[in-house]
Amino acid sequence: MVPKVVERLRAKGLRVTVEPGAGAGALIPDAAYEKAGATLGEPWSADIVVKVAPPTPEEIGRLRDGGVLIGFLAPLTEPENASRLAEAGVTAFAMESIPRISRAQSMDALSSQANVAGYRATLLAAQHSVRFFPMLTTAAGTVPPAKALVLGAGVAGLQALATAKRLGAHSTGYDVRPEVADQVRSVGAQWLDLGLDATGEGGYARELTDEERAEQQARLTKSITGFDVVITTAQVPGRRAPTLVTAGAVRDMRPGSVVIDLAGESGGNCELSVPGEVVNAEGITIVAPLNLPSEMPEHASELYARNVSALVELLVNADGALAVDFDDEIVSGSCVTRREGD
Amino acid sequence: MVPKVVERLRAKGLRVTVEPGAGAGALIPDAAYEKAGATLGEPWSADIVVKVAPPTPEEIGRLRDGGVLIGFLAPLTEPENASRLAEAGVTAFAMESIPRISRAQSMDALSSQANVAGYRATLLAAQHSVRFFPMLTTAAGTVPPAKALVLGAGVAGLQALATAKRLGAHSTGYDVRPEVADQVRSVGAQWLDLGLDATGEGGYARELTDEERAEQQARLTKSITGFDVVITTAQVPGRRAPTLVTAGAVRDMRPGSVVIDLAGESGGNCELSVPGEVVNAEGITIVAPLNLPSEMPEHASELYARNVSALVELLVNADGALAVDFDDEIVSGSCVTRREGD
Repeated sequence: MVPKVVERLRAKGLRVTVEPGAGAGALIPDAAYEKAGATLGEPWSADIVVKVAPPTPEEIGRLRDGGVLIGFLAPLTEPENASRLAEAGVTAFAMESIPRISRAQSMDALSSQANVAGYRATLLAAQHSVRFFPMLTTAAGTVPPAKALVLGAGVAGLQALATAKRLGAHSTGYDVRPEVADQVRSVGAQWLDLGLDATGEGGYARELTDEERAEQQARLTKSITGFDVVITTAQVPGRRAPTLVTAGAVRDMRPGSVVIDLAGESGGNCELSVPGEVVNAEGITIVAPLNLPSEMPEHASELYARNVSALVELLVNADGALAVDFDDEIVSGSCVTRREGD
Repeated sequence: MVPKVVERLRAKGLRVTVEPGAGAGALIPDAAYEKAGATLGEPWSADIVVKVAPPTPEEIGRLRDGGVLIGFLAPLTEPENASRLAEAGVTAFAMESIPRISRAQSMDALSSQANVAGYRATLLAAQHSVRFFPMLTTAAGTVPPAKALVLGAGVAGLQALATAKRLGAHSTGYDVRPEVADQVRSVGAQWLDLGLDATGEGGYARELTDEERAEQQARLTKSITGFDVVITTAQVPGRRAPTLVTAGAVRDMRPGSVVIDLAGESGGNCELSVPGEVVNAEGITIVAPLNLPSEMPEHASELYARNVSALVELLVNADGALAVDFDDEIVSGSCVTRREGD
């Protein structure tokens, strides 16, 4: 939560309680929340409790029977969260389950956090690179721009491409969904056409067949070696991330090149990635960061708070009192457990 | 040294010996030097020895009587280097003493390394910032661009400004020399006019009088508080760096803001800087990195090697043999000690 969004919720008639120190990670002092109209105190007994990560069993114990919890609840990978919340009589909404429909765009926390992750991924690549991203012209001669390849052109991939382009790198994007080629081009990047189509449902790619995957791999491995920077962002909800950058592809890259693997949390897109670590594989640096948005806490929090606030506004009436309409597509889509009788 | 420049020196008729492992820091394998025509071996007995940092007494002992050494030799801050080299009968050229004249631009290693430092300073600022540099427009609303201020508009400052602008920050530059305002504007940044003039000799600012400094300080301190990022690059050759960002200025910045102090090696431009460390002062992050070019080793080495190579070409004849013309302005300007009889 950030003070600006506290003000907005207050204006809608809600009382807001903030746990002391809640903004410390984002360097937001308690006083800033108070100034925005929040009360500092014990937040767990509120009608609606908002957090980021899934609640621990201890935290679930502190929620009140009949209360509402909103957060990233990992319904696909940690289904035990929903069971525990159900037992506690809590009605819970998972931010990652909000339907990807126009009306819910303002609540799309996956996208807003992916924007942060994509931006930070390119910064991380530039930081670990032994080379300039922009072309540099000096009296002693010119150094050419870095060549950056981004695999997966979702929100994170497009933001990574846009940031690499801004920094002056020669940027290229690839995705198994050929219809996103125009989006890649719209951020000033080139499209890498490997000649495969795997358009799926809900904005994600479908899984490829074994044969398609082998062909994609062979073509990708060949392409990757020409790049100074490869950023991978390919994820399939609830499954292990696909391997796109093989050990062989890394071996053929030029020493000093960098791989940033944004799929570290679901196993990684690079065969040599160690989630949360920086690996040096014969001169190639491979970084698989965990929770990149937490590295840019103020804006990551602000975007998340705005997304949550848009959902909260849908759950309350004009007086700011809890009034959940389970017939609403967004409400029913994001609800992972519902108290009996509600 | 980098393989490309080995090729160039070979083409001029020079034999090049590279110390095994010399490229390790820049992830350049020994084989790449060999492929470019270098011999791997003991380099200290060569006619011309090239390195980056000043030589240790032990290294000076390995240089041959009558040989030439080229490197950053810190003639103003470590005059003992020149005395030791003189005793050893070595003729030494300091890259930082090369005159700032048109003909010597290709040898200007201070500028090429400042280009690297300025670029890396902005990356470091973005990495430590809790906020986006670019403006971000999402369905949940817009976050404004970061506001970056760069103090000192030399090569490093201009590159820092250009990089911040590329990344999408609202960028502002300041220098005590008002005639560089157009250079600041030429990289897309705004000019901060505090109404002081301290144009000096040789491209550096002159020292301000006490009164001028107090007035500058008061005006700067007031301006600084409005910025998310402050990058300082103010140095006076051979002297302690001036304090531009006071503890009071830092205290008045918004929590989550960042100061990058590029003058850490000469004491720092920020009162709270600790050279080589990252300091958190009540929510403001202050970073005073040492030797930033070493963090981007391939291109830093490449630019330096090109600068050195331009000087080497001036010191040899058409056959690639040592033939030093001490009447040349560049040769005499950069020579810090000369073997008797040479």
